[in-house]
Amino acid sequence: MRFDVTILGCGAALPLPGRNPTSQVVNVHEKQFLLDCGEGTQMALRQNKVRLMRIDHIAISHLHGDHYLGLPGLIATFNLFGREKDLHIYGPPRLKEVLDLHQEVGEGWFDFRVHFHPTQTERAEVLFEDATVKLESFPVRHRIPTTGFLMREKEREPGIRKDWIRRWDLLPTEILCLKRGEDVQRENGDLISARRACYPIPRPRSYAFAADTKYWAKIAGSVSDVDLLYHEATFDDQMKARAEKTFHSTASQAARIAKEARVGRLVLGHLSARYASGDLHLKQAQEIFPETAMAKDGMVLSLDRL
Amino acid sequence: MRFDVTILGCGAALPLPGRNPTSQVVNVHEKQFLLDCGEGTQMALRQNKVRLMRIDHIAISHLHGDHYLGLPGLIATFNLFGREKDLHIYGPPRLKEVLDLHQEVGEGWFDFRVHFHPTQTERAEVLFEDATVKLESFPVRHRIPTTGFLMREKEREPGIRKDWIRRWDLLPTEILCLKRGEDVQRENGDLISARRACYPIPRPRSYAFAADTKYWAKIAGSVSDVDLLYHEATFDDQMKARAEKTFHSTASQAARIAKEARVGRLVLGHLSARYASGDLHLKQAQEIFPETAMAKDGMVLSLDRL
Repeated sequence: MRFDVTILGCGAALPLPGRNPTSQVVNVHEKQFLLDCGEGTQMALRQNKVRLMRIDHIAISHLHGDHYLGLPGLIATFNLFGREKDLHIYGPPRLKEVLDLHQEVGEGWFDFRVHFHPTQTERAEVLFEDATVKLESFPVRHRIPTTGFLMREKEREPGIRKDWIRRWDLLPTEILCLKRGEDVQRENGDLISARRACYPIPRPRSYAFAADTKYWAKIAGSVSDVDLLYHEATFDDQMKARAEKTFHSTASQAARIAKEARVGRLVLGHLSARYASGDLHLKQAQEIFPETAMAKDGMVLSLDRL
Repeated sequence: MRFDVTILGCGAALPLPGRNPTSQVVNVHEKQFLLDCGEGTQMALRQNKVRLMRIDHIAISHLHGDHYLGLPGLIATFNLFGREKDLHIYGPPRLKEVLDLHQEVGEGWFDFRVHFHPTQTERAEVLFEDATVKLESFPVRHRIPTTGFLMREKEREPGIRKDWIRRWDLLPTEILCLKRGEDVQRENGDLISARRACYPIPRPRSYAFAADTKYWAKIAGSVSDVDLLYHEATFDDQMKARAEKTFHSTASQAARIAKEARVGRLVLGHLSARYASGDLHLKQAQEIFPETAMAKDGMVLSLDRL
C-alpha cells in the first residue's frame, strides 16, 4: 500500500525559482493530505500531476503567508472543477476568519461544504482518523502559534492465508479467532497456529512534518520513532544566533531532533533564500545524523523504500 | 521615453501552465505600475526580470481571487527585501480589510508605509498624477464592483532647439514664452516663431485595461482614442449567453468596444481555461477590429511601436 510524500515547495519565506513556499502532499493508501499551502500550491499540484480532487484534507501549520496564502485560490479552483465532496481544513482558529473574508468580499459560493477544524498548540491531538490512517498535530515553537503534523498508518488486520483456509477447511468463527492472534484448538485435537495461518503484518509506517520551528527538545518526543521526519533547517550552524532570534532551526539542530527521536530518516527543508544550495546544511546535519537528505521541490519520498 | 506593458498573467479564474492569473506591469518613463496581482505574481515578476523595488503603485480592479490573491505575498516579499519606500495601493474598499487581516494573523510588521486609496465604480476618477503620468480608474460591469484602469502620459513641455538659442541669443524670458507656444516679437522687428524654435512635442500615449467586464457600450467612451486597449475576451462568440450570465465578454464584443472607441490597437486577454488557444477569439475579433492581438504571459507590448 502506498505511503509517500511529494514536496510541492520547500523554500522559506522568499520564493525563488524552483523553491516554492511550503506545501507537500502525503499519499497514504491513495488518500491525499495536503500539509501547508503556500502561494502557488495549486500550480505546483498540477506540475506534479497530483489529482486535485483526491485531496479531502488540508492541514495548515501556522499563519505566516508562505504556509497558507495558496489556500483561498485552491478552494476557488476546487469549486471551478465542480467539486461536491466535503473538504476538511485543519489550522489555527483565525484561518477560518481569513477564508470567510475572502469568500465574502468575492461574493463567491461553493457547491461543497468546508469543515473547519481549529488546531491548538497546548498538546498533541488527533485531527482525523479512519480505518487506515491517523492525522495528528503536535506543538512546535515558532514566532506565532504553530503545529507540526504526524501521519500514522493504522495497524492492519492480518490476512489469513488462502491455502490454510482450504487445508483446514476453516469456519468463519475460527478465522476471526486466528485474525485476533488466538490459536484454534479443535475438539478432535487439531491445533491451528494463528501465527502460521496469517500473513505477517507489515509494521505501520509514520511521517512527521515540523515546518517552522526553533530547536525544541520536546519535538523529539512528539516524533519519536517515525520512519521519516521533515524538519526545517532555515539556517546553517554559523547562523545559530539568527535562527534563535527568528524562531527557526539550524541544520545541526534538526539533526539532533532526528537523532534523539531515533527516526528512520531525516529530510531538511525551508532553506533560507540566502543559500544557493543546501550542501553546507547537509554536511553539518550528516555529522550528527547520517541518514539525512535535503528536500527539493518535486521530490517524492516513498516510505516503501525506507 | 519608455511606455510599455509586460503581461505577467492573462489567464482566467483557473490558472494553467503558462497562463497565470491576471497581472501586468506598466512601465511609464521607468515608473512601474502593477495592474492586478493574481496568485503567483511575485514569481512572475521575477521570471520577467521586473525590478520589484521599482513598483510603488499597485491597482486592483476587483476582489475576485484571480485578480488580487498574490498581493499579501508580494507585500511580504517587499518587506523581506528591506523596502523602506512608501507603497500605494488602489482598489475596492474591502481590500484594505483583507490586507489588514493577513498582516494581523501573521503578526507581521512592515518597515514601509502602505497607503490605501479606495476606488469606486460610480464614475471615472484620477487615482494618481505626477509630472509625467496619470493613473485613472473607470467603471466596468462585472458580477461584483470592478474598475478598469487608464494610464496616460502627460503632455510634455516642448524643448527649445539649442541652435535656436545660439542663433537668436535667446533670453530666459523669451525661452519661457516660446515654450508656452507664443511667438517673440523683438523691438528691433525680429519675429521668433515658437513653432520653429521648439522641437515637436510627441503626442502623449495612453493605455487602457478592462480586466473582467461584460460588454458595456459606455466603456468605449471611457477608453476613447487610447493607443492600446487590453480588454477581456473570456469566451468566443458561440458562448455569448454564458458570457452574459457570468458578466464576461466575447471576442467580438471586445472588438466592438475597440472599434467604437477608435483605439490604436486591441489586445485580448482572460481566455477561459476551456480554450487551448486563442485562435478562434482572434479570428472573430479581427473581423470587426483588424488591429487585434492575443495576450500571452511574458509578452511585452511597447507603445513605441504602435
